[in-house]
Amino acid sequence: MSLHDDMMAMGRVARAAAGALRCGDAATRSAAIRAMAAQVRARRAEILAANAEDVAAATGLIDRLRLDEGRIESLAAALEAVADLPDPLGRETARWGRPNGLDIARVAVPIGVIGMIFESRPNVAADAAAICVRSGNAVILRSGSDALRSCLAIHGAIAAGLEAAGLPASAVQIVPTADRDAVGLLLGGLGGTIDLIIPRGGKALVERVQREARVAVLGHLEGICHTYLHESADPAMALDIVVNAKMRRTSICGATECLLVDRAAAPNLLPPIVAALRARGCVLRGDEESRAIADGIEPAGDDDWGREFLAPILAVKVVGALDEAIAFIAAHGSGHTDAIVAAADAAAERFLAEVDSAIVVRNASTQFADGGEFGFGAEIGIATGRMPPRGPVGPEQLTSWKYVVRGSGQTRP
Amino acid sequence: MSLHDDMMAMGRVARAAAGALRCGDAATRSAAIRAMAAQVRARRAEILAANAEDVAAATGLIDRLRLDEGRIESLAAALEAVADLPDPLGRETARWGRPNGLDIARVAVPIGVIGMIFESRPNVAADAAAICVRSGNAVILRSGSDALRSCLAIHGAIAAGLEAAGLPASAVQIVPTADRDAVGLLLGGLGGTIDLIIPRGGKALVERVQREARVAVLGHLEGICHTYLHESADPAMALDIVVNAKMRRTSICGATECLLVDRAAAPNLLPPIVAALRARGCVLRGDEESRAIADGIEPAGDDDWGREFLAPILAVKVVGALDEAIAFIAAHGSGHTDAIVAAADAAAERFLAEVDSAIVVRNASTQFADGGEFGFGAEIGIATGRMPPRGPVGPEQLTSWKYVVRGSGQTRP
Repeated sequence: MSLHDDMMAMGRVARAAAGALRCGDAATRSAAIRAMAAQVRARRAEILAANAEDVAAATGLIDRLRLDEGRIESLAAALEAVADLPDPLGRETARWGRPNGLDIARVAVPIGVIGMIFESRPNVAADAAAICVRSGNAVILRSGSDALRSCLAIHGAIAAGLEAAGLPASAVQIVPTADRDAVGLLLGGLGGTIDLIIPRGGKALVERVQREARVAVLGHLEGICHTYLHESADPAMALDIVVNAKMRRTSICGATECLLVDRAAAPNLLPPIVAALRARGCVLRGDEESRAIADGIEPAGDDDWGREFLAPILAVKVVGALDEAIAFIAAHGSGHTDAIVAAADAAAERFLAEVDSAIVVRNASTQFADGGEFGFGAEIGIATGRMPPRGPVGPEQLTSWKYVVRGSGQTRP
Repeated sequence: MSLHDDMMAMGRVARAAAGALRCGDAATRSAAIRAMAAQVRARRAEILAANAEDVAAATGLIDRLRLDEGRIESLAAALEAVADLPDPLGRETARWGRPNGLDIARVAVPIGVIGMIFESRPNVAADAAAICVRSGNAVILRSGSDALRSCLAIHGAIAAGLEAAGLPASAVQIVPTADRDAVGLLLGGLGGTIDLIIPRGGKALVERVQREARVAVLGHLEGICHTYLHESADPAMALDIVVNAKMRRTSICGATECLLVDRAAAPNLLPPIVAALRARGCVLRGDEESRAIADGIEPAGDDDWGREFLAPILAVKVVGALDEAIAFIAAHGSGHTDAIVAAADAAAERFLAEVDSAIVVRNASTQFADGGEFGFGAEIGIATGRMPPRGPVGPEQLTSWKYVVRGSGQTRP
């Protein structure tokens, strides 16, 4: 059979499996995820051997690809944590009566079939499988070629876990080839069997998916996060938050990439923050005004605004006041996460209302932009588009709804 | 300027207007919609003259296109009804605390910029404008060429209404040309400025949009609605519901196109229903079993199952029991609206849970599938896809969300 025919068959099988998941009960889905974790532990040697082959053949970032005993245990534990999450399905998110006596409920249901396209992190295969099964969605995984052997081995454990719980193994399928045409076929929707594509990887992957997909995309493009220090900011709090927002981990999407400081408070706020960041190895690139206020700031280039450094580099700019900060974020942000540090309630609430990002934060680090930190238990990604689901997406956000109308013989006049 | 440049400029202007709508208050948006209604009434003669030109030039369905004094008054009244709806923005749809003291709220916000592509019904221009403005979304209208003069005249009233309330007229724009390339440009997203495309028209339009769109689509493909009579159905209720579901209006998407009847009860239920439908001019096309039970059923062809007749024609089939009915609907339905008539609770609840349609109904007519009947006040369409917003879409459903995180200095460990 051709790749095309193979992929179309995967779509049909996924749609059928989605029906079985949707109509099955929550306990069975949880049991399947727990069985996946047990299978991952039982197949540790096999997974590590496959991963060693991937690492030996790798050309890119090996750290993200490499598994060891500790990472496999973390992966299994993460599966168990998802198994323990509350069932997101069947909840009535609204219910009301109509004057004619009809009773209408809006009930959470699975989306259907997810296409998950990711790059070189094998743990994404397990995380995505667990979140999809927890939320009743079938999924077709497409691993980057770098991680394919590892992901096939992990998928063996996932499939065995599903079968152990009496669910179809086809609820989680994996594209078994590195053939790049498989991505194009997934993006075409496999004859209407894919409801949602989730890309997880670099900007080039996400842009390709958004350009070519014929179905809905839950896309995370960039995390160009800003932290803005209002003139009312408490200096000690501002220092703690900025250092954490930039330096806790510089490679994650919630890391702050640009610091904005009110002109009135900059001489007071900025020097100790710059000193603290430099002491931790952070490079600062600022506008002329910030450079005149604090020592050790390099001149920023035009391309340093709205840039996702993902590194210990921070752009710094002095702004006139709240309105200028909001406008700057609108022009240079990516709609991911932006924060204000302010003691003044009115300014803070206006920032929270007017900044059009998936997550807006007052007096806390942008690095809290994470499904786990939100209490979602796990996340399959953070969506930076405007359509729902927006922001961190865990099992509850990976659902849709249906309307259930209960009558007693009503006909429409 | 070229059409391409003109359209890209419309996108930029729409994005700016969306910002103004998003940050404005609800009373201003309501006032703008009321002012649109007043402008529609004041410009009645101008709108009717433009419409007369459209009608004179029309080649297609003239009834949908034609306006008269009564229809213009209805259109204005519909605008006022939307102005009176509760504000869908700013609602906290969830709020919770985290162990570290962070307070997280999920708040309803506008989606952003909508591209509305419709065919020959001029009232859609007004309805869409009102629903978008009510929900804080900017919109670019693209009318079918048949209705373009009428829609331009209505748009004049809309723009004047926006300005009267102090909102930018560019919150509602209309593509001023019948050039078909404009549709392709809208579907390309106008440089990332369109967040959602809503097609409203025939199947060919919707299919083109779903094939070509590079952004999210809220699509209504077909309404292939089933009514299933369980063996426990009350015969009188079944008759009333089936006659209404098929015959109240045969051209709407919520009209029942196929009747399924349990074998055990078919000899009792079917003959009076067939007689009542025939007496009202309905043609019945059935399988052999139904034809043996009731008089006057023509033989159904294979293509009569899963067919959207939009006419006084009903397909009829006898099924073994509930499971067969659910499987038949899964195979032949369009995920729009499907109903069961049943006195037995267990069977009804299983149908409501397992049928994977946007709307599932017990003991009522499928013709209730309508935003107005749901109490949404108005609808911009009914979405038959699986992603949210699914089903009838009114102002409240035309929103997204953001997360507002309030802290007191928290940094992430």
